[in-house]
Amino acid sequence: MPHSPEEKKRVLTRVRRIRGQAEALERALEAGADCAPVLQQIAAIRGAVNGLMSEVMEAHLRETFGQPATSDTDRQARIAEMTGLLRSYLK
Amino acid sequence: MPHSPEEKKRVLTRVRRIRGQAEALERALEAGADCAPVLQQIAAIRGAVNGLMSEVMEAHLRETFGQPATSDTDRQARIAEMTGLLRSYLK
Amino acid sequence: MPHSPEEKKRVLTRVRRIRGQAEALERALEAGADCAPVLQQIAAIRGAVNGLMSEVMEAHLRETFGQPATSDTDRQARIAEMTGLLRSYLK
Amino acid sequence: MPHSPEEKKRVLTRVRRIRGQAEALERALEAGADCAPVLQQIAAIRGAVNGLMSEVMEAHLRETFGQPATSDTDRQARIAEMTGLLRSYLK
Repeated sequence: MPHSPEEKKRVLTRVRRIRGQAEALERALEAGADCAPVLQQIAAIRGAVNGLMSEVMEAHLRETFGQPATSDTDRQARIAEMTGLLRSYLK
Repeated sequence: MPHSPEEKKRVLTRVRRIRGQAEALERALEAGADCAPVLQQIAAIRGAVNGLMSEVMEAHLRETFGQPATSDTDRQARIAEMTGLLRSYLK
Repeated sequence: MPHSPEEKKRVLTRVRRIRGQAEALERALEAGADCAPVLQQIAAIRGAVNGLMSEVMEAHLRETFGQPATSDTDRQARIAEMTGLLRSYLK
Repeated sequence: MPHSPEEKKRVLTRVRRIRGQAEALERALEAGADCAPVLQQIAAIRGAVNGLMSEVMEAHLRETFGQPATSDTDRQARIAEMTGLLRSYLK
């Protein structure tokens, strides 16, 4: 997870960007930044984390259903796993 | 959509409950209810709508992947449709 | 809650619209509508409910802080009540 | 922003924890972790960022309304600023 080298690189780039945003926010707080820019930076990190969640969920859906099921039991198990992840992590 | 009679009944029950909650909130506001109970009723409707969204999304996922794909093109089209819906409606 | 006749009218209009949207969704489901339009209607109701929550929260903030506090104790109690509501209902 | 040394310390601790979570996720991805634990880590970061947003918003509310307004104009300006921030950053 993620599965292809390209997907892995894309997801890692997103995570590194989030780390960089957190570091920048830390510096801003230490320098006593005002509330409005601080809230803006937090909202940007929140958006980046939501984007990361969607990207990883979509990659997993492609992985889960990208190959033919070996049986109906296998098919139903894949569906159950995916609906469970949706219920846990997406609203 | 939804697909089986049971699923359709479950989804309709949820929608009717939401309608009933909206009617109850309307009566409470007309009667001049306080802010805290009004916010609580709105939060309950929000939770019910999120639950409805998840139920319909999961039903569609079962429908989309519940039968073998007819070709790899068909398989990829199903995946693209599902990831598009996830991106549009779930965070 | 809400406090002025104009605010009360605005909030009631929003609630009636949400009820109307739920009734329209019920009819669409009974008529066997496809998944995409059903998800779109649910997302519209979700947006309307979030808008209603924001409107009521803002009205309450205006009500809570619109008049001078009678004492510092009164001021701190108002702040505690408002932060409690934010924590419960907004993310 | 944040205002008291204690608040500043609390907010900085939260931000550093988020940075640490991002670093841990980066290592997990590089090590080829499975999807379920990756999604769980992302959800934990999302929760931490939502908690940070709430903490900073509440601190700002305390700051904004913690002292008596100098005039009704001042009072209305504070309310307008706060409702604007709520609308931008909280749902």
